[in-house]
Amino acid sequence: MKPIAVGLVGVAGYTGMELCRLLAGHPRMELVKATSRSEAGKLLADVLPHLGCTKLAGLTITAPDMDELAANCDLVFLAVPHGTAMDMAAELVAKNVCVVDLSADFRLRDPQVYVQWYNLKHRHADLLAQAVYGLPELYHHDIAQAKLVANPGCYPTSVILALAPALNNGLAEADGIVADSKSGATGAGRKPSTATMFCEMHDSFRAYNLGHHRHTPEMEQEAGRLAQVQINLSFNPHILPLGRGILSTVYTRLARSVNAQEVLAIYSDFYAMHGAALGASWVRVLPLGTWPETRNVRGTMFCDLGILVDPRTNRLIIVSAIDNLCRGASGQALANANLMLGLAPELGLSAAPMVP
Amino acid sequence: MKPIAVGLVGVAGYTGMELCRLLAGHPRMELVKATSRSEAGKLLADVLPHLGCTKLAGLTITAPDMDELAANCDLVFLAVPHGTAMDMAAELVAKNVCVVDLSADFRLRDPQVYVQWYNLKHRHADLLAQAVYGLPELYHHDIAQAKLVANPGCYPTSVILALAPALNNGLAEADGIVADSKSGATGAGRKPSTATMFCEMHDSFRAYNLGHHRHTPEMEQEAGRLAQVQINLSFNPHILPLGRGILSTVYTRLARSVNAQEVLAIYSDFYAMHGAALGASWVRVLPLGTWPETRNVRGTMFCDLGILVDPRTNRLIIVSAIDNLCRGASGQALANANLMLGLAPELGLSAAPMVP
Amino acid sequence: MKPIAVGLVGVAGYTGMELCRLLAGHPRMELVKATSRSEAGKLLADVLPHLGCTKLAGLTITAPDMDELAANCDLVFLAVPHGTAMDMAAELVAKNVCVVDLSADFRLRDPQVYVQWYNLKHRHADLLAQAVYGLPELYHHDIAQAKLVANPGCYPTSVILALAPALNNGLAEADGIVADSKSGATGAGRKPSTATMFCEMHDSFRAYNLGHHRHTPEMEQEAGRLAQVQINLSFNPHILPLGRGILSTVYTRLARSVNAQEVLAIYSDFYAMHGAALGASWVRVLPLGTWPETRNVRGTMFCDLGILVDPRTNRLIIVSAIDNLCRGASGQALANANLMLGLAPELGLSAAPMVP
Amino acid sequence: MKPIAVGLVGVAGYTGMELCRLLAGHPRMELVKATSRSEAGKLLADVLPHLGCTKLAGLTITAPDMDELAANCDLVFLAVPHGTAMDMAAELVAKNVCVVDLSADFRLRDPQVYVQWYNLKHRHADLLAQAVYGLPELYHHDIAQAKLVANPGCYPTSVILALAPALNNGLAEADGIVADSKSGATGAGRKPSTATMFCEMHDSFRAYNLGHHRHTPEMEQEAGRLAQVQINLSFNPHILPLGRGILSTVYTRLARSVNAQEVLAIYSDFYAMHGAALGASWVRVLPLGTWPETRNVRGTMFCDLGILVDPRTNRLIIVSAIDNLCRGASGQALANANLMLGLAPELGLSAAPMVP
Repeated sequence: MKPIAVGLVGVAGYTGMELCRLLAGHPRMELVKATSRSEAGKLLADVLPHLGCTKLAGLTITAPDMDELAANCDLVFLAVPHGTAMDMAAELVAKNVCVVDLSADFRLRDPQVYVQWYNLKHRHADLLAQAVYGLPELYHHDIAQAKLVANPGCYPTSVILALAPALNNGLAEADGIVADSKSGATGAGRKPSTATMFCEMHDSFRAYNLGHHRHTPEMEQEAGRLAQVQINLSFNPHILPLGRGILSTVYTRLARSVNAQEVLAIYSDFYAMHGAALGASWVRVLPLGTWPETRNVRGTMFCDLGILVDPRTNRLIIVSAIDNLCRGASGQALANANLMLGLAPELGLSAAPMVP
Repeated sequence: MKPIAVGLVGVAGYTGMELCRLLAGHPRMELVKATSRSEAGKLLADVLPHLGCTKLAGLTITAPDMDELAANCDLVFLAVPHGTAMDMAAELVAKNVCVVDLSADFRLRDPQVYVQWYNLKHRHADLLAQAVYGLPELYHHDIAQAKLVANPGCYPTSVILALAPALNNGLAEADGIVADSKSGATGAGRKPSTATMFCEMHDSFRAYNLGHHRHTPEMEQEAGRLAQVQINLSFNPHILPLGRGILSTVYTRLARSVNAQEVLAIYSDFYAMHGAALGASWVRVLPLGTWPETRNVRGTMFCDLGILVDPRTNRLIIVSAIDNLCRGASGQALANANLMLGLAPELGLSAAPMVP
Repeated sequence: MKPIAVGLVGVAGYTGMELCRLLAGHPRMELVKATSRSEAGKLLADVLPHLGCTKLAGLTITAPDMDELAANCDLVFLAVPHGTAMDMAAELVAKNVCVVDLSADFRLRDPQVYVQWYNLKHRHADLLAQAVYGLPELYHHDIAQAKLVANPGCYPTSVILALAPALNNGLAEADGIVADSKSGATGAGRKPSTATMFCEMHDSFRAYNLGHHRHTPEMEQEAGRLAQVQINLSFNPHILPLGRGILSTVYTRLARSVNAQEVLAIYSDFYAMHGAALGASWVRVLPLGTWPETRNVRGTMFCDLGILVDPRTNRLIIVSAIDNLCRGASGQALANANLMLGLAPELGLSAAPMVP
Repeated sequence: MKPIAVGLVGVAGYTGMELCRLLAGHPRMELVKATSRSEAGKLLADVLPHLGCTKLAGLTITAPDMDELAANCDLVFLAVPHGTAMDMAAELVAKNVCVVDLSADFRLRDPQVYVQWYNLKHRHADLLAQAVYGLPELYHHDIAQAKLVANPGCYPTSVILALAPALNNGLAEADGIVADSKSGATGAGRKPSTATMFCEMHDSFRAYNLGHHRHTPEMEQEAGRLAQVQINLSFNPHILPLGRGILSTVYTRLARSVNAQEVLAIYSDFYAMHGAALGASWVRVLPLGTWPETRNVRGTMFCDLGILVDPRTNRLIIVSAIDNLCRGASGQALANANLMLGLAPELGLSAAPMVP
């Protein structure tokens, strides 16, 4: 079979790197265009030496050029900052190229909410109606039809998957939800600063941006759709001294009297059903009394969920672990691309987690 | 001045090691008895090579013997597990020796609560009335008079200091509080197991024991006293891939309409007043918009607090960072010992945090 | 095509875990027997939760039984300690099953050297003549014919690949060689002890076992064959606070006047030739002035080599990086199995390194 | 007693920070001037929040001004890059202020060697004769008389202390020495770059600058003085994924027949004698068969040495561990300042190592 030509804008950041890692082993897609303004002209393996002697090693990085991408690619991944991505996406979609946008530009259905949280007017609000929120378990049918997929944020992926069965089944109150999330340092991106230096992050832990993180409205939008009611939730991120991984501890109040076994069954059934429809079993609901660890999902699409029903405080607590770079960004982007191109969703994504 | 003779039961665990570290530099106390059942007969510096060429290096470890400790020491630190400590403490107090107990045995005022959470009948419930909960900012007057101090748990230290000004001033609702805590690996103790191996914890993060951790009733007891009402809170711990440090993110609902500046002033005043009375300024309330990092308190008694008033979700969120081994255990024990012996509370505890 | 049935003895250690990780993605081999004395009766995914929802998840672990393994498997991997492996290997080979032994039992051609370093008489010295040292670049022809492959040690793999072109081409003096190696903590195995706890290894670095490590004779045997002269070298290991990876810095004295470009060409040609014959380009010789990093080979068979010709001290220094668990153990075992079974050497081993 | 006023140029780098940490607890010195071009005008505790509520917290950082420093300080620490330091030092010495220069500018006695390795002409070569190399064990008499002390490099401190007894006693051949050093990431300084980001260093290990590091001539100069013969050695550094610490493994060939006990006695006697003369026992020679760990010296002036006499390869191998920031830079600078000011060398430097 002829390989499917894909392009990648933004090869030198962590999500671009992760896409390269995955594409190097994808059996059907061929990365034909990898672009980076700062690294144009170099070989991919010179910029990313770990990719030496892989099938991507000899690709020459070019400056991003939408015409060239459109002429050569069936699908393009955008791994560039929000604000930059929206124009590229609009141009590529207009040229009839499929786009998976890893930025936040097409995630929020309401352009007013985008302005409010990103402090930027949306220049292509007309495209929002056709953009699909790329969380495969919830939207695989729409993704398969889409020309433009808005790849979810890393934190929202972990929090929405934690909440979906509870909100969908009326287990949890819609108000008063707290998501306390902890992310590995790759989540802060690859731009050097004092705060992201090894010596500043190593052997330390900190909170940041409490109450104001831009992933909040994305969680509220999707949680609200699941609960069929508007949701205001408190999202608070922290930075872990590790590379990959997000663990979110999500606090809800029980909406009705249930025991832990019932909740476990509801969660298991929900993801068994959605996984079957999707064609991939990526959400693993753990036995009661066991809890997710970020290492158990390292490098994969898995999302591990642990559940506590606490009658003492009348709470349902859900702990969710994903790999922020793979499930939380590039792996999910590849899964969306698989669906958009009519391939099996797991193609190129079936390597087991790297433990230890 | 003649040095004050002190003893330490349980030298080989992490809290015992931390006490040795601090006592090696204490200007008035002299460690004359260091005991350990497993290491008896060895020199301290053979068991803890980092202490070679310090003033503790040549001390011979002995098996724990309360008569011998009472005969030689003015004060004894107990760094042994709960259940074991209570009998030792009772015997030493009966022999008129001051005791700082780092275990949980005398922290809970109600022996029924002890049974319920520790699954063990308290054999010296009569001593509970005279035991003082050793949180210096709140109880320094009582500590200075006490013969028996129950050194607070690490998690409770971080959570109670975060909540005290809010509960004391009616800023926060007493119900619905969530404490999401993250601890360094030293918190798990020094007993080897697969789960505590480097290769199992490194580059990973996990929750454990959600809803069931034994530090919960201690938080509820002290928070309840501050709020003057019974409190049920949801406490949920996690393990960080770092050595020392606890960061607790504490979620409350605002009880009245205040803005962030007012809350900041209340917190600053509360700890300025209590610090002045105590004679040590260990709680640092950070400027709005800045957040604690565990490294900033490393090796010290500092507790850093960051504050968010979030009108969107009607919440007051407090983030608290301490060094779990120093402020959360052995440093606080030493501060309590200073107070009990009539010394300045900061004696031997004034080294600056080790950053980087 | 019918899958090829393979077995694994010792599933719960790090090399067993790594083999499971790789076998979960192997397109032709099927793990039909996974054994562990301590975990028999459990499902693989209960013992190794990261493998949940992979194709190995539902396999039931059994106690090791050579008859059962022989009856069900075409090839068996032995991931058990030296001393234990030799009897298993002998029994399986006698039953006409292919064996890849990850222990040291069949690596040393001279049973006297085995006794001297392992302090144990070899009970199956008769098999040593037919055992092949499983370093694919050097022995792929023999491996393809072998029934019993002795999988190389992790340190020797890194050191022999660093030295091979130099010794084979007379660039380096055979005496006076020093190998200073640094290994990730997985190299110490999965048995809990105080020394392997997170809190003892994290944020620290140490040497161990200098001059006495059992991998020394293996290096001397293979280096001696390449140089065609007996070699005594000084091998000295250290433990890094990281999970996977070995970096060896190998010091030799130049045997003749060459410049760096010439040495680079010799190294590149050597591995281009051997890689082509083998059918896999796993040794990457880096441009002058660039140096290997363990992360660049993470999870793969790559061995990265950096070269310095230092006229000031008349030395040729080679730096070598591998993943100790993959190239240094289980990945190499799988490559050997591929060769023994007539498969392409890279099958199941072509995922790109996980960076970051 | 009146405090002794000291100044610090370069407060915002890691060595400046470490000096602040130590000065915050020094009983006799008072930091009256802390300068930084980039941070001038801010409070020290705003730039270094871990120093909040210490005695340095309220100091206002100023731009470096030699007149002002000379007018206010008895002694000044220069924690600025080489090339910059030399002019400042010259000016301050001319104004009769004591200077401890943490840069390389006055370490090399021969200005030609300086030019050769630093690619920079020395503008104050006349001062080289009066500058003292600040390794206290070897030069304490001269340091006590000096106006200008060249604080040794971190790597040279670890390597020279490892070699001194062997070279001084003719145990080791002077040629063919190899120093394989591994440094924590703080050694790379505090300037942000992609290479020093957490996500690039964490869980990885690499060599750098082999054969060309600028600390080489400093080692050769001091080793040559000890051996009384010119020495060319091979120095090769690596970067560890940890914060503080250097471990150097130093390879020599035995110059005469000795056994390990004899070497151990020679090392122990050498440092017992020099330590007694200095008034501080900072070098700890470990029992045979035990090896240094960087954590055991964390935050202190200790240098731990482990010794191997290997008759199989005729080598004497010495392993040396220091804290690169404390013993390898700022702590040693403070010790030198103590000596220059007539204080006990250990003043402000006696805190025990922070383990764990």
